[in-house]
Amino acid sequence: MREALAEAAFELFLERGFERTTVDDIVARAGVGRRSFFRYFPSKEDAVFPDHEGCLVEMTAYLEANAGSPDPVGTVCDAAGIVMRMYAAKPDFSVQRYRLTREVPGLRTYELSVVRRYERTLANHLRDHGPETADGSLRAEVIASAVVAAHNNALRSWLRAGGEGNAEAAADHALSLVRDVWGTAGGAGAAAVGVLPGRLPEGDGEVVIMVARKGTPVWRVVRGIESALGASPVAGGA
Amino acid sequence: MREALAEAAFELFLERGFERTTVDDIVARAGVGRRSFFRYFPSKEDAVFPDHEGCLVEMTAYLEANAGSPDPVGTVCDAAGIVMRMYAAKPDFSVQRYRLTREVPGLRTYELSVVRRYERTLANHLRDHGPETADGSLRAEVIASAVVAAHNNALRSWLRAGGEGNAEAAADHALSLVRDVWGTAGGAGAAAVGVLPGRLPEGDGEVVIMVARKGTPVWRVVRGIESALGASPVAGGA
Repeated sequence: MREALAEAAFELFLERGFERTTVDDIVARAGVGRRSFFRYFPSKEDAVFPDHEGCLVEMTAYLEANAGSPDPVGTVCDAAGIVMRMYAAKPDFSVQRYRLTREVPGLRTYELSVVRRYERTLANHLRDHGPETADGSLRAEVIASAVVAAHNNALRSWLRAGGEGNAEAAADHALSLVRDVWGTAGGAGAAAVGVLPGRLPEGDGEVVIMVARKGTPVWRVVRGIESALGASPVAGGA
Repeated sequence: MREALAEAAFELFLERGFERTTVDDIVARAGVGRRSFFRYFPSKEDAVFPDHEGCLVEMTAYLEANAGSPDPVGTVCDAAGIVMRMYAAKPDFSVQRYRLTREVPGLRTYELSVVRRYERTLANHLRDHGPETADGSLRAEVIASAVVAAHNNALRSWLRAGGEGNAEAAADHALSLVRDVWGTAGGAGAAAVGVLPGRLPEGDGEVVIMVARKGTPVWRVVRGIESALGASPVAGGA
């Protein structure tokens, strides 16, 4: 019933446009009563994105099942991949919906609020399972938004290309940018960072020499370098 | 006139609630005609956020004036600070509006679309003025969203604290997280990264030893380490 309603709604949105389609049109096409529609979808907008609720449930379950992972950033990247798989499972529908969404401002703002829910879900996981620091919630929100931005960049490229190509590989590639910078694969606990100021034989710039165990997260390297150099962060904005 | 309308609107929203206030109520309170309202504000929502348009203009001008900076990430962080200054200039108004926005779903989605515009403005700058790489747009979007998330984390903390404390210092602190990881102060052009695999005397983990000029951006260090180690990224999610 839910799927039949979503299908009828989407057919009509493509035929007549989103604004010109009423809930009455949708239930007539699906052959059900008006109340059935609202039992499944709070609004017409929700019928355009019938899979996000289920995807959020799946994402939340995945995050809970991996709450003990030593690499929470890797976990949220993998969780973002669930969203890409949902889109990739129905390429034609995803591409048509993308085009529809570009044309209807109300659907774009609806989509923004869905994206925000994913982002908050990922940020909460990072805050609860990331390293305990004074800036825990800041770090969690920054990383979650970077994960969502990377995922959406890959998703948008795939949708613009008409759903051609390997969506999941594109998402993995985009997310690797976030994993590389923020990830803690190898275990943050094993990290050891040593920093020595020095001077390269050729060239005229000062150098830093850093020794770190493989698997040391980059943010920890950055912090180690900063504290070694005092007021001269290696890549700061000073 | 514009300011008088925004003030009348906001008084009424606080007195009667956003939903129960009509445009007719607002123009009656301001003592002007109905058409005047729509000359200044496309919708009732816009009257709640009268300063964002001007702030976007100011941000765009700032970005253009700093298009030649060797540190585009620092430039977009500074540009995000313009938004915080706008909020901090009217602490009482900002705090009251924050509370109103929490209660009205329509204002929250409006706010999401404003945030998205700032994010896109910053991403466009980074894409056009950041290092030219195959992943230029991906990198630009990831960094822009990280900047916005850091800014909003500081802004929200300040608003929840009733507008107490130094908003701009809080924004600077939050944004330093992004500058440290993504910033290119010191000039990417001067970067030289060398990586040697090795083994620490004590401990059982493999190590990497990295030599880089001061000022080398962290992403360049990460890339250097990755390419030196092939399939074993120093902080990847493999």
